[in-house]
This record gives sequence, C-alpha cells and structure tokens, in this order.
Amino acid sequence: MKNKMKIMILGADGYLGWPMAIDLCFKQYNLILIDNYIKRKLQKKYKRLPLDNISKIESKLKILKKINKNIDFYNIDCTNFDALSKIFKKTKPDAVIHFAELPSAPYSMFGSNESWKTLQNNLQSTFNLAWCVKTYNSNCHIIKLGTMGEYGTPNIDIEEGWIDINHKKRNQKFLYPRQGSSLYHTSKIMDTDLLWFYVRLYNLRVTDLMQGPVYGINTHNELDTSLYPMFTYDDMFGTIINRFIVQAVAGIPLTIYGSGHQIRGYINIKDTIKCINLAIKNQPRRGDLKIFNQFTEQFNVKDLANKISKSLKLLDIKTKIQKINNPRIEKEKHYYNAKNSGMKKLGLKPTLLTDKIIIEIAKYVISNKDKINKSIILPRSNWK
Amino acid sequence: MKNKMKIMILGADGYLGWPMAIDLCFKQYNLILIDNYIKRKLQKKYKRLPLDNISKIESKLKILKKINKNIDFYNIDCTNFDALSKIFKKTKPDAVIHFAELPSAPYSMFGSNESWKTLQNNLQSTFNLAWCVKTYNSNCHIIKLGTMGEYGTPNIDIEEGWIDINHKKRNQKFLYPRQGSSLYHTSKIMDTDLLWFYVRLYNLRVTDLMQGPVYGINTHNELDTSLYPMFTYDDMFGTIINRFIVQAVAGIPLTIYGSGHQIRGYINIKDTIKCINLAIKNQPRRGDLKIFNQFTEQFNVKDLANKISKSLKLLDIKTKIQKINNPRIEKEKHYYNAKNSGMKKLGLKPTLLTDKIIIEIAKYVISNKDKINKSIILPRSNWK
Repeated sequence: MKNKMKIMILGADGYLGWPMAIDLCFKQYNLILIDNYIKRKLQKKYKRLPLDNISKIESKLKILKKINKNIDFYNIDCTNFDALSKIFKKTKPDAVIHFAELPSAPYSMFGSNESWKTLQNNLQSTFNLAWCVKTYNSNCHIIKLGTMGEYGTPNIDIEEGWIDINHKKRNQKFLYPRQGSSLYHTSKIMDTDLLWFYVRLYNLRVTDLMQGPVYGINTHNELDTSLYPMFTYDDMFGTIINRFIVQAVAGIPLTIYGSGHQIRGYINIKDTIKCINLAIKNQPRRGDLKIFNQFTEQFNVKDLANKISKSLKLLDIKTKIQKINNPRIEKEKHYYNAKNSGMKKLGLKPTLLTDKIIIEIAKYVISNKDKINKSIILPRSNWK
Repeated sequence: MKNKMKIMILGADGYLGWPMAIDLCFKQYNLILIDNYIKRKLQKKYKRLPLDNISKIESKLKILKKINKNIDFYNIDCTNFDALSKIFKKTKPDAVIHFAELPSAPYSMFGSNESWKTLQNNLQSTFNLAWCVKTYNSNCHIIKLGTMGEYGTPNIDIEEGWIDINHKKRNQKFLYPRQGSSLYHTSKIMDTDLLWFYVRLYNLRVTDLMQGPVYGINTHNELDTSLYPMFTYDDMFGTIINRFIVQAVAGIPLTIYGSGHQIRGYINIKDTIKCINLAIKNQPRRGDLKIFNQFTEQFNVKDLANKISKSLKLLDIKTKIQKINNPRIEKEKHYYNAKNSGMKKLGLKPTLLTDKIIIEIAKYVISNKDKINKSIILPRSNWK
C-alpha cells in the first residue's frame, strides 16, 4: 500500500465529491480533501436543503481515517489563490479532481449576482488550480468536471470534445464549438477554454469530463448512512431523475418543462465514480487535453418520466405526469446525437436506468419520505 | 442637431477611446464618457509611461464642451455593477462602445495577479454591460472591441466571426472556433462567448469588432496637441508599428521577436474610428451578433520592419533590424489568410501603411524625441 498516488479533491463535500472521496479512501490513495461548504451556504440562503441532513466533513473524517489514515481535509475557498497554493505547494498532489464549481443552471440564471458569482467562482477556481499546477507540480494530472451542456443542441453529431474541420480544402482540428443554454454552462465553456490554453502553453495534462445530468445515490451500499452524499431534488440544485423520483414518492405529478422532447445524455453516479477512476488510471501525456463525453444513455424528458412512472408501479406507486411552461430558454425539438465511446473503450461497463436502479433510488427516498419539502420542487428561476 | 443618438463610451481615456470620443464629439452625438484611469495606474505601477504626458479627461472636457455641449464624464469602474447600472439607468444610451478592457497580452502573461486581473476585469465589465442593456434598454446597440488574436493562427482561412460546418452530411453554423496565444486573447474569446450567450437568450444587438494591432496617432490633425491620445511604445502597452517607429527615431534597432515570419492583420487608428462609425450606422437587428474582422492589411513582422526602415530613409533616419529571442509562445511559421470584406462592404476606404503615413507618425515621435525612455522598450514579460 506504499507510494500510492496523492490525490486532491476540490469540492469534496458535494454530491459527486463526497462519494468520490469515499471511493478513493477505500482504494487507499493519499487524499487531500478541500471544500469551503459554499453549496451548503447557498442551499441555506435560498432555502433549498437536501433531502437528508448531511454532516460536515470534519465530523466524518474519523470514520474515514479508520479505513485509510492518509486523509486530510482543509476548509478553504479555491477562489483564494494564496490559500489554495499554500496547500498545493505543501502537498504536491499527483492528480487533482476539480469539482469546486457552482453546478446549477437555475442558480446561474436567478439574477445578476448569482450569474456573476457562478462565472467568477468557476473561472477563478479553475484559474487558480491551473496556476498551482504550472507553478508547483506541472506533472500533476488535472481531472475537471465539464458538462454535456457546453455543447448545447447543435444540428450535427456531438463528437468527444474535438472536431476536424475541412474548410476550403484545408484542415484544422479544433475544440468542438460550444454554446450553452445557461450562464452556468457558459462558465464551463470558459473553463474548458482556459484549461486548453494552459495545456497548450505549459504542457499541462488535463482530462475534461463532459458529464450529462447525474442521478442516483449511494456508491457503497455497505456504508453507514452517515457517509451518504447529499441528495438534492429542489428546482435549483436537484437533477431531473432524482427530482422525478421524489415527486413520485411524494405523490405529486412529475413535472415536465415544456414539450418534453428535449434530449440529453444521462449517467448514474456509480458510473461517474467509475469514469473518474478510469481517468486517474489513464492520464494524458503532457500537453494533452483528453475529453470524454461522460454519459451512458440518451433519453428525452417525456420518455424519462414515463420510464420512471412505469418502474415505480412495481412499488405500487402511482404517478401523474404534468407538462408545465418551460422556465428555461432552450430548443425543445432538436437533433441530438452525442458520442460517448471513449470511456467504454477504457473499460466502462455502464449502469443503465433499469427498474432495479430506479427502485433502489426510490427506496432511499421512501426512507426519507417525511423529510420531503414539496414547496421547493417547482421551478422559481424563470429565464425569460 | 436635435435628437442625435446618445452614445456611451466605456474606457474613454484610452488609446482608442479618446480619439473616438473626440470624433463623436465633432459629430454632435450626445456623449457619456466613462473611465476609471486603470490603464494610467498600471502604466505608473509598471513604470511604462506613454510618450507624452496626457491630461485627464476632466481637464479637457471644457475644450470639448465648446465643440459640443452634450458631453458628460463619469470616473467609475465598469467592473462595479452598481456604479455602471446607476449611470446606465439614468442615461439609457442608444449605443455603447466598449473599450473598458485591459488590452495587453504581455501584461496578462506577467504573473498570476496580472493574469487574473485581465480575466476578471474584461469579463466583469462585459458582463455588467450586458446586464445593464438587458435590464434598462435592451434595444441598445453594444459595440465591443474584440481582437484578431482570438482566432490564433489556424491552418484554415479565418472567416469573419462565423463558420458553416458540414459534418457527416449535416450542417451547423457556429462561432468560428477560437484559440488565443495569451491570457488577454483568451479573455477576449470569453467576452465573445458571453455576449453571444446574451444575444441568443435576450435578443440583444451586438457588433463585435475583431481588430488587428492598431498603429498611428492623431485622427484630427486640426486639433490642439492637448487633445492628442496617449501614444505608448513600451513592451507592455505599446503596439508593434508604433514601437518600431520609436526605436527608429531613438536610434536603436527595431527588435523582431523570433524569426519574424508571424503574420498579422494591421489597422491604422484613423480606420478604427471609421469602422466604429460604420458600426454605429449599421446596427444589427435584435438577436444578431455581427462580427467584423477589423484590419486592412496583412504583413509578417520582418516585412513590416523592412517597410518602416525603408520609409524612414526618406527622413534620413537610418535603422538597424535585430532579431531577439521570442518572449512569447506562438507559432512563427504558419498559414494565415483572414477575411476582412465586411467593413469594406459598408464603405470603408482603407488607410494603408504608406511612406506618408509612416512619416506622419515618425514626425509626431520626433517632436517628442527627448521624452523617449529607451529602457522600457525591450520585452520583460517572458511567457516561458
């Protein structure tokens, strides 16, 4: 177990950051966890709490240290360059998994403060990370979470990050052109541009994971529930599949924004963890920006609602599906064909959205049914 | 002269902002000038002063008011949303010319503070402007200065802002893919992305001018020299043609970074003013982002040095040309073919880099020869 890689996780308290930390803890990596609890603060401020009350990292560290003693936690803000570089300089990680971004499209469209906060937080944390790596350990592998939403819904196939353009009989490979439908997505486009700039200039090595909406709950069934990650279902921080299941369990209609023809690529949180593990083991060469489209299945929203509705009948849950005015500005009927072969080539065996998986999530929600706050589910961030 | 358009100029103290203000002043527009003198502060801090000492706007306003009484000046920071929106709400301009960006590639590559400052200043001023327009007068025409450097040096022709991509027998029009060679250029790419996002979502109208390196001095020869704009020639804020002419006049070699095969598109400051006037008169429809490549001629650096050297022989100035290590990270031999027909179609008659023009600039420099500070010319911002 000696000489294991040292991995830093920025945003270790989050929906993805925490299960990632637990997974790498079991795998005996040397871990440096970082979070400033900004998402918790926003959840409190905007009165959109997760389903269950999750303890802060400090109080859970003891349990993790029993599994793996090489874990440290720092409560710092990654937008603070001095704070981040101090820890980076001291620890010199071999890889950094960067989740330290505000991940909500509705939050980013709530008002000018929220918009700028999203842009500034996401860019500055990425900027600071790139500078730490360039300055203190340029060999370090940056693994950054991007989003499929960076691509938007173009009328051509969505390739994995790059496209070869043949124009007037000459050729050039470019980053696949991106245009997001929220300021959050736009901030992630800028992140990608920023990291690509530093990769080109300073030969950094970066993996950028264009992830679809994530769903699901625990990654280690054997764990004490006190180690479960936060599960959100509200209109600001919740993701669609989790929200649908909560609506079903709460006995309220599954709400479809607009016509429901919007197609996206989805991924189970278990696969997010697997993909990031694959990224860790397959680091790019220096000067290379590897991009993966990190989703396993494409659905349109209507089919997704019907699928969940059908699966939950097996638990005797009867659901209604209701279309509401789309609070977002997005194309509802569009071409969508996104590639996702990269992770499969590295060995990913997808966890698909089966009855079993839907029921597993529903059971977690049912066990917390009394905590569901029905008033935080319908959209209150209108983009128009 | 009644009912003239109301035009706001952000960054009215700058190399381009000030002559633009004077030009529109003569044309009797209602003008709102804004600047916080940040560039002057940086010039002082980094000890890179312009050739001549230029008075602040407050002290020159009296002279302008004699020509056109409808001029106001506000000393505010455009990254301060409250300050900008207060003035915007009060004045509701019909058009805003946005020069309020830190314009220096070498500054942006000086260190982490300068890098972040460039990114934050340029994005936040653009963000604030978009929000002011969207909130208080969504009909307002935003005219933003971009840079040809956003495109980098791709192996295919550089179109004017947009490209039609045919991919696997399907078509999509995208913003032309951009990849800059400095953090400054990267910040301008993000600006373009940001404005394109707000154009798409809120039907704003924006003209984005992808400008090549500007050169030259006065735009109104008849003016008192006290109304001249700042003329910089240092390694941080100076542009190449102006710097070459200063080096020639100072009797020191014209310094070429690297091999000198780097090709760029250049523009005379007189044409910058003409182009922006054309943009004002040809506003895009709502929901349209019009992009122009704003340069008039392409040269490689070597040919440019030779051209200036040859012209200055007419003034009996003998020049030496010297190659030095390239402090930048950029391709030195590359394909370059950029389109620039848009402005010509609107009526631009280009001012080319003739003997006459070079001599005109040299005469201004000669009249200030004793003020040249030779110690601020050679590059001190090394990107490697």
